[in-house]
Amino acid sequence: MTKPFMFEKPLGMRDTLPLLYETKQVIRNKMSEEIKQWGYQFIETPALEFYETIGETSAILDAQLFKLLDQQGHTLVLRPEMTTPIARVAASKLLKQQIPTRLAYSENVYRAQQIEGGKPVEFEQIGIECIGNGSISADAEIISLLVSVLKEAGLDGFKISIGHVGFLQELFTGILGNEERAAVLRKFLYEKNYVGYREHIKFLPLSSIDKQRLIQFISLQGGEETIENAMQLLENGRGKETLYELKELYMQLKEFGVEPYISFDLTLVSHMSYYTGTLFEVYAGQVGSLIGNGGRYDSLFQKFDWDTPATGFAIRMDRLTEALGELNAREPIECVLFSQEHRQEALAYARKRRTEGRRVAIQDINAVQNVDAFTATFSDVQFFIGKGGASRDE
Amino acid sequence: MTKPFMFEKPLGMRDTLPLLYETKQVIRNKMSEEIKQWGYQFIETPALEFYETIGETSAILDAQLFKLLDQQGHTLVLRPEMTTPIARVAASKLLKQQIPTRLAYSENVYRAQQIEGGKPVEFEQIGIECIGNGSISADAEIISLLVSVLKEAGLDGFKISIGHVGFLQELFTGILGNEERAAVLRKFLYEKNYVGYREHIKFLPLSSIDKQRLIQFISLQGGEETIENAMQLLENGRGKETLYELKELYMQLKEFGVEPYISFDLTLVSHMSYYTGTLFEVYAGQVGSLIGNGGRYDSLFQKFDWDTPATGFAIRMDRLTEALGELNAREPIECVLFSQEHRQEALAYARKRRTEGRRVAIQDINAVQNVDAFTATFSDVQFFIGKGGASRDE
Repeated sequence: MTKPFMFEKPLGMRDTLPLLYETKQVIRNKMSEEIKQWGYQFIETPALEFYETIGETSAILDAQLFKLLDQQGHTLVLRPEMTTPIARVAASKLLKQQIPTRLAYSENVYRAQQIEGGKPVEFEQIGIECIGNGSISADAEIISLLVSVLKEAGLDGFKISIGHVGFLQELFTGILGNEERAAVLRKFLYEKNYVGYREHIKFLPLSSIDKQRLIQFISLQGGEETIENAMQLLENGRGKETLYELKELYMQLKEFGVEPYISFDLTLVSHMSYYTGTLFEVYAGQVGSLIGNGGRYDSLFQKFDWDTPATGFAIRMDRLTEALGELNAREPIECVLFSQEHRQEALAYARKRRTEGRRVAIQDINAVQNVDAFTATFSDVQFFIGKGGASRDE
Repeated sequence: MTKPFMFEKPLGMRDTLPLLYETKQVIRNKMSEEIKQWGYQFIETPALEFYETIGETSAILDAQLFKLLDQQGHTLVLRPEMTTPIARVAASKLLKQQIPTRLAYSENVYRAQQIEGGKPVEFEQIGIECIGNGSISADAEIISLLVSVLKEAGLDGFKISIGHVGFLQELFTGILGNEERAAVLRKFLYEKNYVGYREHIKFLPLSSIDKQRLIQFISLQGGEETIENAMQLLENGRGKETLYELKELYMQLKEFGVEPYISFDLTLVSHMSYYTGTLFEVYAGQVGSLIGNGGRYDSLFQKFDWDTPATGFAIRMDRLTEALGELNAREPIECVLFSQEHRQEALAYARKRRTEGRRVAIQDINAVQNVDAFTATFSDVQFFIGKGGASRDE
């Protein structure tokens, strides 16, 4: 009798079989190497954190948190993202004094799903945080590092769209007068629902000039000229500084030589509510969803009793692997099949091949039920069996 | 106001800071390479599994499981070990046909604690499973691989104690007559409470000869001769086959050349109840607790509707790292400190050093609060600042 659930996994949970595992490992290693070369240091934090410490502080919706009770009755959460746990560590006494601090991670995070959506509930993020660094140089550095990391991973034809939380906020409050109305429009932008956005504006109690400005606003997507176009939309210069920031950032990105990957999108709104300044998203042609994102979060640390600026990015390993396409990382495995009397020769041969860098499985032929099915899984098979014990070369 | 919990982690949860992170990474890479060279393939399974699939099947006590509800109301568990999830994957149609299958993993597992014990609740295991292989060759292979992996990790002076579930069981049931009494004695052995064991035997309704045999039994720990000594203890030859198995195993381990690391301990009892034959534990002089363990588990797959033998081992990364002692894996990081006007030279210099394989952080000096504290964290600092923009060589 097969029990229900016997071979099943919870919703959104996946097994990673050898070919994908090795592909991801090769990609991850290249990315980590690049991140280390830029002076970032990897750390690891626990999968479980106190709800009060991480769950409430995190920008992830409460309904997406996996909560559980520990044996002492405290509410724990499976970490939904890594920025807040890294902030907890960085805000500790020791690290605090040495800012700017450059930290990195490569970890699984967990986000519960309300309904069947086929989305992974557990997924790996590789990311970095540059903490205690409020300069535009830091933003330029991490975006340039993001480009380098994606190139090292083998990704081509990706685009990083840069926006600015402050610009959008200044424009919206200037025109709309209050935060509630701004929130409604931000939601349309977050969903990239421009039709809904236009419809909604029609019914707002605004002058036709202001309505026009809100409509023009959504065309602020494109190259360097976007910043100049944005400048035209501003009244009384409110929000100008945010555009000067973006200009300076672009100039620095040119010095890094990464401007071919850069575009601007001033309508950018993130699901992560903690961003306070520049923010950005990475897309690659083949994959519809976000491959990575990041930005400046200058107020998160206040929750850890520390007033310090920070900026960082995170890359979704599953989507990056999808964007890269082919899985071809698996190295061939040879097999040495032996009978009792020839075990010693077989072991010696396997040892020699391994010294030469080959992957070699050794297998007692008596324990194999179906030699054809078994040997079919190897790139090469050597037999050490029977009379004379001669090994057969394929 | 500092909130309670602000910087705290749940009981038994740890952060891994850069030095330990890199040390573990170096060790993990060496171990994984060796495991791959023996033809084992790494896979990954989800951190969360259905309680019905993994929680109930696992050998880990129910009280040690972290349980939670998913949005659909199913009970989930954080995986308490990796053998059962790997079995779930291996029992799937595709892999089943290609047995023997050699799989490996390197994952965190989770075991809740009843009381404050200072024990880690989340810890990493690196392990392998050789599935569909009932031969003694498979046991010899995995124990030899275990030796190779530990040597690759840099461990010296470790000892692998081998026991046999079947021998202990035959002897106990032969003398004690029932399983209940056997269970009591097994518990003493599991706790290595030999005083309690001896005391308990005094009051058993047994002949003085049988009591003597039970006392002699606990001295069955040592070298090759242990197997001969064990033979003397048997009546009517019941349990003899298990000793022949161990003899054959030892002979094969000599062919692998790993016998210097091997000893026997026929009193070995594991906390993992699924072992059915040979089982083993690894200890290293400096660390009191188990570094790794493993054994044959020929009935676990019945829970996945499949009657197939298997054998495997798992290594605790935290204890292995402790046994290895020094943390010295961190590569030096250089720093390039620049002012606005010299950014381009600074970037060019950093790029060049990275090409030479160095780790180089770049930092705008205007964003540094305390230059002394900041630069103290680097192995070397180059300045690209001020008049003439000359870089100063340290």
